Amino acid sequence: MRNKVARQMVLAARPHGRPKLSDFRLEETAMPTPGAGQVLLRVQYLSLDPYMRGRMDDRKSYAPSLPLGGVMEGESVATVIASHHPGYSEGDIVLARTGWRTHALSDRADLRKLDPAVVPVTTSLGVLGMPGFTAYCGSRLIGKPTPGETVVVAAATGPVGSLVGQLAKVAGARAVGIAGGPEKCAFMKKELRFDAAVDHRADDFSAQLAVACPNGIDVYFENVGGAIWQAVLPLLNDFARVPVCGLVAQYNGTPNDDRTDRLPATVRQILSKRLMLRGFIYYDFAQEHFSEFLREVGPGVADGRIRYREDIVDGLDKAPEAFIGMLEGRNFGKAIVRVDGE
Amino acid sequence: MRNKVARQMVLAARPHGRPKLSDFRLEETAMPTPGAGQVLLRVQYLSLDPYMRGRMDDRKSYAPSLPLGGVMEGESVATVIASHHPGYSEGDIVLARTGWRTHALSDRADLRKLDPAVVPVTTSLGVLGMPGFTAYCGSRLIGKPTPGETVVVAAATGPVGSLVGQLAKVAGARAVGIAGGPEKCAFMKKELRFDAAVDHRADDFSAQLAVACPNGIDVYFENVGGAIWQAVLPLLNDFARVPVCGLVAQYNGTPNDDRTDRLPATVRQILSKRLMLRGFIYYDFAQEHFSEFLREVGPGVADGRIRYREDIVDGLDKAPEAFIGMLEGRNFGKAIVRVDGE
Repeated sequence: MRNKVARQMVLAARPHGRPKLSDFRLEETAMPTPGAGQVLLRVQYLSLDPYMRGRMDDRKSYAPSLPLGGVMEGESVATVIASHHPGYSEGDIVLARTGWRTHALSDRADLRKLDPAVVPVTTSLGVLGMPGFTAYCGSRLIGKPTPGETVVVAAATGPVGSLVGQLAKVAGARAVGIAGGPEKCAFMKKELRFDAAVDHRADDFSAQLAVACPNGIDVYFENVGGAIWQAVLPLLNDFARVPVCGLVAQYNGTPNDDRTDRLPATVRQILSKRLMLRGFIYYDFAQEHFSEFLREVGPGVADGRIRYREDIVDGLDKAPEAFIGMLEGRNFGKAIVRVDGE
Repeated sequence: MRNKVARQMVLAARPHGRPKLSDFRLEETAMPTPGAGQVLLRVQYLSLDPYMRGRMDDRKSYAPSLPLGGVMEGESVATVIASHHPGYSEGDIVLARTGWRTHALSDRADLRKLDPAVVPVTTSLGVLGMPGFTAYCGSRLIGKPTPGETVVVAAATGPVGSLVGQLAKVAGARAVGIAGGPEKCAFMKKELRFDAAVDHRADDFSAQLAVACPNGIDVYFENVGGAIWQAVLPLLNDFARVPVCGLVAQYNGTPNDDRTDRLPATVRQILSKRLMLRGFIYYDFAQEHFSEFLREVGPGVADGRIRYREDIVDGLDKAPEAFIGMLEGRNFGKAIVRVDGE
């Protein structure tokens, strides 16, 4: 018998810097009833992604911010539990933009059916979803590493970074990953088969990065922002490419310690090394390249040539804590909340 | 009868920030004698260019720095006054990398013959030389403005900026120039036929720039660095392109007034607006594109469709003062020193 009550996580307060648990509020609502042409979804897995931090601010960005009291946005894997649409049946598993909820209605414009027989459905939130496609766009369409070049990526055990490094290897390039702590570094070398792994928490991080990149850096995939850029900049080779897809370290607005303007030094390097920096967002490329991405990367995920790791926590009520942890790099792999057990 | 003495301007001291007259020293040397296969050149016109400031530092850049006591580098238009090479005759006029000298030997590897009947020979130092080709590369190969887009360039009465704006017009785009003072602004609109001209000395410069760009900025040709970038950044449209070819304002190392780190805000805009910044140096493109540039732009210069302005001072001894003035924007047009009258 179906629950009469659905639950949802709303934005209770706009965070200043690092979000707090009190910036979120779990609410109960009446179970929605699907109208004509609609389906009712029960969320199984909710994706946690860094971009969600940006939505919590009221600063203008590439997407509108969330109103106070609004349901936190996000993608999820969900099961159709009632369908008034001929294209969907009860039991269908779909990728949907439900937000942080236990249940949601959909008029199916945003649904994509998933086949659990091909690959685990959670991969549609990570390595074969938006994060994986982000890695693909930055690597294949912007960074374009060639054999023998060196590709560096941070947050390298996460869903974007882990694929960036593996795509570098596929292209014949050297993959150097950056992450926090020895466990993540071991995972990069052993599981992801990167050529080198550097712990950004090490006191001599910059020196270690230089050692890991004896021929400099040709592609730096920028998905974190902040201090790592300062270590990467002097190592960039002439004509290096820097796809910029995310700035986790800046989402929380942490200021500089020493209040120096780092822009002039960066621009001087852009000129003298003829660097190319290019910001991008996966959806600019989705229509033209998403199918090609699934064709190229999907089989590798299915047969284990492409590896990934997930960090799954249980319960929608635990989503804020897991989200805050992810922004600080405490997750180990793609951050996902299992919602359907409730 | 030929002089027995040649003169040359050497680097006497490394400048700290803005160069001073005492950083230069005029020296006399014996008149060089051409050996087998060499020609003796008498310099007519010496080009002054912002990159020369970088050579005076011992900081690593895309080119090696000048040793103390070394002759200042630079291109010039020169006359062959003695030739021991069958390919050159007395009286030939050539473009050469002589440096700041009255006379120089050449083994002709760096010479290009000029025909004064086609266009004035000084154009080989400006609109049809390295500065013009820099404008061409940044516009045609990187910025690629399309009809209806808006192109903004600073130092817009100079040899790079004036061609950037005129190439924007050729491409059907809107050209907005930035320069210092009403005289330069009038020149941009009347002579160069830009759509708008903004005086960066105005107190409300940022507001004026916004008014001049009602549809935002699609291409910002960065050839000055510094404060103008801060006014341009908020006006850049999604998918704007920023060719970076020079940073005059930074050559002198002027620090920020308010000691804020401007890098995070810039990188945030790179991401959210999907900007593309690309540093370039003309010689990376020269082999592939220089002839095409001359074919496309040369006829327009010859028949007056493409306009340019020169700021010529007399005497090698005046070169340091003119150079210092150029770094501060006091020149009005391509800075050139007439050397041959001495």
